[in-house]
Amino acid sequence: MTRADLVVTDIGELATLATGPIPRVGSAMRELGRIPRAAVAIDRGRFVYVGPEARLKREVHVRSGGATWGAGGGTVVPGFVDPHTHVLFAGDRAAEIDLKIGGASYLDIAGRGGGLFQTVRSTRRASTALLLRSAEARLRRMAAMGTTACEVKSGYALTPAGERRLLSLVPILARRTGLRLVPTFLGAHAVPPEYADRPEAYVSALVTDALPLVVRHRLADFCDAFCEPGFFSVEQTERLLLAARALGLGLKVHADEFVHSGGAELAARLGCRSAEHLLESSEEDRRALASAGVTAVLLPVTPFASFAHRSSPGRAMVDAGVPVAVGTDLSPNSWVESMPLVLAHSVYGAHLTPGEALTAATVNSAHAIGLSGEAGTIAVGRSADFVAFDVPSIEHIPYRFGLLPERVYRRGIRVPPARNPGS
Amino acid sequence: MTRADLVVTDIGELATLATGPIPRVGSAMRELGRIPRAAVAIDRGRFVYVGPEARLKREVHVRSGGATWGAGGGTVVPGFVDPHTHVLFAGDRAAEIDLKIGGASYLDIAGRGGGLFQTVRSTRRASTALLLRSAEARLRRMAAMGTTACEVKSGYALTPAGERRLLSLVPILARRTGLRLVPTFLGAHAVPPEYADRPEAYVSALVTDALPLVVRHRLADFCDAFCEPGFFSVEQTERLLLAARALGLGLKVHADEFVHSGGAELAARLGCRSAEHLLESSEEDRRALASAGVTAVLLPVTPFASFAHRSSPGRAMVDAGVPVAVGTDLSPNSWVESMPLVLAHSVYGAHLTPGEALTAATVNSAHAIGLSGEAGTIAVGRSADFVAFDVPSIEHIPYRFGLLPERVYRRGIRVPPARNPGS
Repeated sequence: MTRADLVVTDIGELATLATGPIPRVGSAMRELGRIPRAAVAIDRGRFVYVGPEARLKREVHVRSGGATWGAGGGTVVPGFVDPHTHVLFAGDRAAEIDLKIGGASYLDIAGRGGGLFQTVRSTRRASTALLLRSAEARLRRMAAMGTTACEVKSGYALTPAGERRLLSLVPILARRTGLRLVPTFLGAHAVPPEYADRPEAYVSALVTDALPLVVRHRLADFCDAFCEPGFFSVEQTERLLLAARALGLGLKVHADEFVHSGGAELAARLGCRSAEHLLESSEEDRRALASAGVTAVLLPVTPFASFAHRSSPGRAMVDAGVPVAVGTDLSPNSWVESMPLVLAHSVYGAHLTPGEALTAATVNSAHAIGLSGEAGTIAVGRSADFVAFDVPSIEHIPYRFGLLPERVYRRGIRVPPARNPGS
Repeated sequence: MTRADLVVTDIGELATLATGPIPRVGSAMRELGRIPRAAVAIDRGRFVYVGPEARLKREVHVRSGGATWGAGGGTVVPGFVDPHTHVLFAGDRAAEIDLKIGGASYLDIAGRGGGLFQTVRSTRRASTALLLRSAEARLRRMAAMGTTACEVKSGYALTPAGERRLLSLVPILARRTGLRLVPTFLGAHAVPPEYADRPEAYVSALVTDALPLVVRHRLADFCDAFCEPGFFSVEQTERLLLAARALGLGLKVHADEFVHSGGAELAARLGCRSAEHLLESSEEDRRALASAGVTAVLLPVTPFASFAHRSSPGRAMVDAGVPVAVGTDLSPNSWVESMPLVLAHSVYGAHLTPGEALTAATVNSAHAIGLSGEAGTIAVGRSADFVAFDVPSIEHIPYRFGLLPERVYRRGIRVPPARNPGS
């Protein structure tokens, strides 16, 4: 008999995602490891039983003082893994909405020193205490919506020391929230105003001053860059990423978000772990990403909340055999914290099926941030990170637009709901 | 001194919506009655003070046993009024998502006897207890997201007796949930299969058998009809609506959702209270609606969740001077219960400003369902229906996509959060 300190019974549908290839492409995205009438058992934060409820009693013994929760016939899925967030920032840009309705684009607003540069000014000025407090509040709300692991990018300081300050907060936030956080160095989010007329010098500063210390102090797992006209050219991006790779970092690229400018092609050529956004990527790009095995990290809420005329190319990517992950892109430009909303937008906006969207938000997004061995699936031995919804099947998670989780567990411990912090 | 049994202090921004013309068009939609550093006081379910916090102590005395809540500098707005819901139904249509991703339209699926007709079959078979239980659960979740009044349409029985059964549940649901509910007779939601080859006979049955009893038993305030090719022609819609008007009902039309077919023009010609959906309406329609004072009830989540290529024409309607309201359209076709999500989609999808979206979700939607005198504004003497959000201004409600209310009050009594029903 296996001993357990927590048993969850009466699961109408369990989707383990622990089957098939990782990352998953094409038809593999439809194999979700569904188990009807299931149960899971957890001991000391790890799954010790995952399977039909009918076998539970024969195999699992609940420790004295252990707990049992009946999920009421609901659906249980792995904790969501959010592979792309800019959670560390100060201030907000709510006032931009009226400008955008008047027709201004992200690039227009940034070009006038607003947008991203406004957030850079607020973030540079912000105290460490404020940055920690605001990011912690966001992460707790994300956790209440089912996120159990996520990536955190730097990118709103745009100085070597300021970017290091941001990255140094990530382990503190992980301790405070209990979430598994993966830090990504995004010093190349934009060329800061001080370097506006000499972007090469900023890239040199990143390569020479920032990256070595980021790596020496183990502040990041990945290096990312915003490859787009007006931000960093393909050549500049390549120079930075090659330096990062030489120091042992994994590689990501913000690619082809606003114009088709070669970011996805670069990601494929360098064999990056992921290329992100990809709104303007081409059929040729998709073939290149597929054959290089680069994961497309799609952010389906971002074009919607940016008044863009494009949708994330989810269907086209899956059909081309590209491994697809989805995330929030939480930032002051498109402030969304909820992975269930990302699932809904992955379906309605990016035309993934519900099963593909769930795969993209769990096992594939774990792969995109280097957590394949540790997050995104429900299996014996894995950390007991899971989300229960009061609906009969995984299809209902995007279908019930705005659905809130019933319960969220991280390492077998229940995550408190975010609602009503005052009560 | 005014006596109060509840005082809410430390409101960073109060938007009363109690200013300017009702319904509001054009620039009037930007006058929100904003009061910074505000407070409200409530006694026996009604507002007795609405104004600056600085004057509160001089004017209001909290009764012994009364309560004070500090809103932490957050934003308070009127309880949302959802002017268009199909909350009474059985079953679900989650399985349609895969068909729709494969390219099938709402009309394709309905044409094959699925879609709406599947819901009609489930609803006809459902026990009254099941219908009440499922609708009550939906209404409670809606209330937890800030809805304090809403319209409820019949329309999934499509027999005179079955439609009356649905409408007869509305007052029971109002008593159980405490929400203010406005019933609308939508017997003309579709031509039922039994009448497929003789739609005129179904219209006759509605006019002769259904409407007189609906009115005699005061089962509905409004009559609505789905005016669209394959559903009801302009002539059939007009015949039904004229009969309803003669019996004293208010008039609504589901107009120009899938094709431009004359529904909006009819609504303007008859001077209906509202025309709803309007995705395919023309510039001429907008002029006609504006000059007839017909409220455009827009449902911005529906085209998104239906994979339609259109967005709700919010910007164009406001610019043409049409009074605009927004609602969920909660139904098994697009299952959304949250008015904050509708606000976000009103901005990002329909290009209303945040102020226009808030107006459309409160004072204008109250007008659309005949509640102008009773809901949608915060003013002394009004029922104390309000929503507090933990954000600094109303702009943040749509900006923070997926934002949950901090607290919701209906008649001065706190509405419980929907989350975690099991705990």
